[in-house]
Amino acid sequence: MPRTVSDGGEDFDGDVSSQPGSRRHTDSNSTHHHHGYKVGFPPVKGLFAEFADGVKETFFADDPLREYKDQPRSKKLWLSLVHLFPVLDWGRSYTFGKFKGDLVAGLTIASLCIPQDIGYAKLANLQPHVGLYSSFVPPLIYALMGSSRDIAIGPVAVVSLLLGTLLQEEIDPVKNPLEYSRLAFTATFFAGITQAMLGFFRLGFIIEFLSHAAIVGFMAGAAITIALQQLKGLLGIAKFTKKSDIISVMESVWGNVHHGWNWQTILIGSSFLAFLLTTKYIAKKNKKLFWVSAIAPLISVVISTFCVYITRADKQGVAIVKNIKQGINPPSFHLIYWSGPYLAKGFRIGVVSGMVALTEAIAIGRTFAGMKDYQIDGNKEMVALGTMNVVGSMTSCYVATGSFSRSAVNYMAGCKTAVSNVVMAIVVMLTLLLITPLFKYTPNAILASIIINAVVNLVDYETAYLIWKVDKMDFVALLGAFFGVVFASVEYGLLIAVAISLGKILLQVTRPRTALLGNLPRTTIYRNVEQYPEAAKVPGIMIVRVDSAIYFTNSNYVKERILRWLRDEEDQQQEQKLYKTEFLIVELSPVTDIDTSGIHALEELLKALEKRKIQLILANPGPAVIQKLRSAKFTELIGDDKIFLSVGDAVKKFAPKSALNV
Amino acid sequence: MPRTVSDGGEDFDGDVSSQPGSRRHTDSNSTHHHHGYKVGFPPVKGLFAEFADGVKETFFADDPLREYKDQPRSKKLWLSLVHLFPVLDWGRSYTFGKFKGDLVAGLTIASLCIPQDIGYAKLANLQPHVGLYSSFVPPLIYALMGSSRDIAIGPVAVVSLLLGTLLQEEIDPVKNPLEYSRLAFTATFFAGITQAMLGFFRLGFIIEFLSHAAIVGFMAGAAITIALQQLKGLLGIAKFTKKSDIISVMESVWGNVHHGWNWQTILIGSSFLAFLLTTKYIAKKNKKLFWVSAIAPLISVVISTFCVYITRADKQGVAIVKNIKQGINPPSFHLIYWSGPYLAKGFRIGVVSGMVALTEAIAIGRTFAGMKDYQIDGNKEMVALGTMNVVGSMTSCYVATGSFSRSAVNYMAGCKTAVSNVVMAIVVMLTLLLITPLFKYTPNAILASIIINAVVNLVDYETAYLIWKVDKMDFVALLGAFFGVVFASVEYGLLIAVAISLGKILLQVTRPRTALLGNLPRTTIYRNVEQYPEAAKVPGIMIVRVDSAIYFTNSNYVKERILRWLRDEEDQQQEQKLYKTEFLIVELSPVTDIDTSGIHALEELLKALEKRKIQLILANPGPAVIQKLRSAKFTELIGDDKIFLSVGDAVKKFAPKSALNV
Repeated sequence: MPRTVSDGGEDFDGDVSSQPGSRRHTDSNSTHHHHGYKVGFPPVKGLFAEFADGVKETFFADDPLREYKDQPRSKKLWLSLVHLFPVLDWGRSYTFGKFKGDLVAGLTIASLCIPQDIGYAKLANLQPHVGLYSSFVPPLIYALMGSSRDIAIGPVAVVSLLLGTLLQEEIDPVKNPLEYSRLAFTATFFAGITQAMLGFFRLGFIIEFLSHAAIVGFMAGAAITIALQQLKGLLGIAKFTKKSDIISVMESVWGNVHHGWNWQTILIGSSFLAFLLTTKYIAKKNKKLFWVSAIAPLISVVISTFCVYITRADKQGVAIVKNIKQGINPPSFHLIYWSGPYLAKGFRIGVVSGMVALTEAIAIGRTFAGMKDYQIDGNKEMVALGTMNVVGSMTSCYVATGSFSRSAVNYMAGCKTAVSNVVMAIVVMLTLLLITPLFKYTPNAILASIIINAVVNLVDYETAYLIWKVDKMDFVALLGAFFGVVFASVEYGLLIAVAISLGKILLQVTRPRTALLGNLPRTTIYRNVEQYPEAAKVPGIMIVRVDSAIYFTNSNYVKERILRWLRDEEDQQQEQKLYKTEFLIVELSPVTDIDTSGIHALEELLKALEKRKIQLILANPGPAVIQKLRSAKFTELIGDDKIFLSVGDAVKKFAPKSALNV
Repeated sequence: MPRTVSDGGEDFDGDVSSQPGSRRHTDSNSTHHHHGYKVGFPPVKGLFAEFADGVKETFFADDPLREYKDQPRSKKLWLSLVHLFPVLDWGRSYTFGKFKGDLVAGLTIASLCIPQDIGYAKLANLQPHVGLYSSFVPPLIYALMGSSRDIAIGPVAVVSLLLGTLLQEEIDPVKNPLEYSRLAFTATFFAGITQAMLGFFRLGFIIEFLSHAAIVGFMAGAAITIALQQLKGLLGIAKFTKKSDIISVMESVWGNVHHGWNWQTILIGSSFLAFLLTTKYIAKKNKKLFWVSAIAPLISVVISTFCVYITRADKQGVAIVKNIKQGINPPSFHLIYWSGPYLAKGFRIGVVSGMVALTEAIAIGRTFAGMKDYQIDGNKEMVALGTMNVVGSMTSCYVATGSFSRSAVNYMAGCKTAVSNVVMAIVVMLTLLLITPLFKYTPNAILASIIINAVVNLVDYETAYLIWKVDKMDFVALLGAFFGVVFASVEYGLLIAVAISLGKILLQVTRPRTALLGNLPRTTIYRNVEQYPEAAKVPGIMIVRVDSAIYFTNSNYVKERILRWLRDEEDQQQEQKLYKTEFLIVELSPVTDIDTSGIHALEELLKALEKRKIQLILANPGPAVIQKLRSAKFTELIGDDKIFLSVGDAVKKFAPKSALNV
């Protein structure tokens, strides 16, 4: 491409050589007219077009119908089927090679999930076999409908805890277990419905309102709470508080210290916990040995169960699982409360736990999709997860979702597709059919230590530290959620997390940033004077940039803030005897949109400026903004000659005049 | 200042002549090195400094302590006193000239408010004299503490209606009026507390969460509802529905058509309504004659009362006010519910109506402050209004606030200070002491027509039309609030208004705009290609601008959206056999802030791009952004040489290379 070496522009930001595309290149030295671009005024969109765009960006941001474009109907039908059941797509290209990977991974996560399921079920105050049920049906459904290849489906610690706390507020699990489990199924049903509906109506973005920091804090808090709950099993304490906050837990721990603790239990529990943590440490040091930590739980279950069986330690007060019901999931459709007071309660609990489960699953899906670079359609996922839980609720399962720890193992074990979940499900089924009786002598202490070992990972102190380093406000949100869970309750922590997140959004929109711009000498670049000390203010001209859309939430603030910049400027000018400000250039580049309140604020600003004999000038309004300013006749009010393509142009027009007025 | 006419830059946006301030001017033609500015990295703020800044911008955006800077303590004390009681400030410079203005204005609004007060009290299901009480004490308090010079304090239609609806849901005003009025005082007390607290803790910005459009819709709806309510008085219907929605009102109107209507009442009501509307029309045509419409209500009251008295029309079933209690406000401190179930109910109702009253008062204050160009401190106002209502609740007043119509009259009548409110209060007091008995024969029909005449102004169809023209989405919000009020109830409409407003905010932050940038030939300006058709894409380089802070709410969307731009671009490139994209420049100028989720999204974007062999380049990150990117080590991840001061610089660096790869 042509490149005039003796090009005057190169010294500035303005540089001809920077448009290889432009063929209309003229030697700048010869021409002195202004480049003469006006602020673009895009074609006005009709109401419908505007609305349609809005809807598309809001609900179909991922453009899901992209591949449907100009396809025959039969093809479209097939695509929709595939959309609903991705298995039809990847299933056809499924090979034995992939199966080997999935088999290994499936067996590994199965060995991991069986003991966890039993423990988590207890966490949700449900009978152990319900946990196993939830690792049988849901994974199968997900394998058909889900699009994540690495997620491991089943019960998870946090959701189990949340569900447990919410349910036992309504029904006492010990006094009337049947009603309790019925409510649990009801909640699971509505959790599923919530998830599916969110996906179906493409409202998936709602879960994004929970800030990352808040989630990290919440998870860590939940992990601590869960671990504390396990002290019951680990120390063999008989009567344990039902509250989950750290204070009451610690009280009931120390309260039982003299008579409540059972040394055999403690011996088993602590020794195996040590074993598990060691394997975890090894796996962390050497990624290749991840399988050690993966199968460790099952091994410890087997060994401990055997020990208890031969020593009959249960006679010495070592609490054991007792018998787990044999056989696979019985139907539970008839158990769901379709009417009565528990319907509403089940609904409420379902919505809450469904949302939390969703957040976890989507986060996992996205993480691993990112690692292997394949796309995940959040809304599609939600439909899959929802259907899975709805079906689950009718087959005696409670809320299942993606498990962080097991998904990681699944990934490291080299899973290729959701078939690993199928393998896991089959293993769990066989377990339910054949070997549940063997769990009779499994000491609760083992389950406790397995759970503790599992939830340790949820305390993501590295991320927490990063957040502290990067964004202090985020860290406050994190702490809020964390302490909320630890000192109050899971719900309360969740509430704090949501409140903080929403509060942050609202603040962000009410108090947008504004910046005073200065000129970088020998260029026409105007930058924030705070960030660029070398940026020089232009005498007689104040340049303010508004850094957000101007809406009713911030219109007043923006107006006031600009006037405040002006006041401060004028104070300085009086002190330092500088040129008096005659022009206020508002750089609108970042202002992507404006509403009626915003325009009203601009009008008030204009009035205030006129009183001060200062001219208002607008630089680079975006398409939406210029359109609305015109239809509101604001452009006529200030005059089209006061609207410029860039700050540079505006300064060029007015600077000399102001400089002369000294 | 020096101005090189033979300046090569002038042809571009880049132009030396545009920095009169810069003394470091060099003749551009001679120098060819790059201007060599790096992205500025502002000094890192400590946690506290950052936090302090945040707090200041959020709660003290208006910099109220400005004048306190370096002042002696005595002065500071005085300033604080003045801050609390502005009267101390303007009172000292009060002149007889001003008083004349205030006197006229005061008398005018008094003549206007007396009949309105009686009507509004009925609207709130309270006895007529309570309305008058509320125009006596509150204005006096406000005169001492308020900073608006034009607002006219007293009961207003919308708040009365809202309070009425909310209260009668709890207690039947007809069956047990005492409990009802007690609850009313309780609500008023908490309304005041809410207002004062919001102001005291500088949470004034909360009311900004109610969008202008929603308010317009809500007000119009309320006006219609109020007017419909008046049909009872206007048609002399005895048994009228208690519901406020249009359907049930219309039903009870037609239901009573045959026997319920009273022709004498209709005659009086409609004729005077016609009279009032005519005067209003005259005043509108000729601003000088505003006083005609101002005193018309009082005149019609006098005349109609007289007519009824001599014709004894009340014997023909013309409903009359009957006797109004004589004497000024009795204390009502002991009547407020300090305990029991009604405490909570009163609190709830108080908070709601307090907020609505606040929105109205602040809006009025700001409008007129704008007209006369004086500052209003929203938070200070709230404290004043709050105190006024708290005192009011202890002196038998119900929620008072600024009245749109009366404030306008006050302004046009040439009020100078809050003294006009004092004058009004005194007149009301005299009325209470001396002439209330004269109202005995005042027909309710007159009050009805006066109220209708007053609320007509609340239907601001001009603004509604403007909103429709400017922002369709805003208009939808308007309609939502409007129909909510008209077809459901005031509360419901309010709820819709708030919901829509909040929803709008949340959407705005989840779905920020992104734009594809192109180069304006012969300049280094890069603009949205949709807005500037002449803007040319740079071969091999895709330039995307993200138009908002990247937070957890939108981080995922932003990432996905950028990748979608890329996909679409690649499709085009395949069709048109263009250069393959090798560089993705993300213009960060509008991105004022980023949080951990945002950075995480950028990392994922980077990964995705690496897979596609595309280099990620950042242009002009702001201070907060660059700081966080550094502390998160993202800058190291992509390399500092990938971060540029401007898109122009980035393109300059990479464009030729990509152009050669063809």
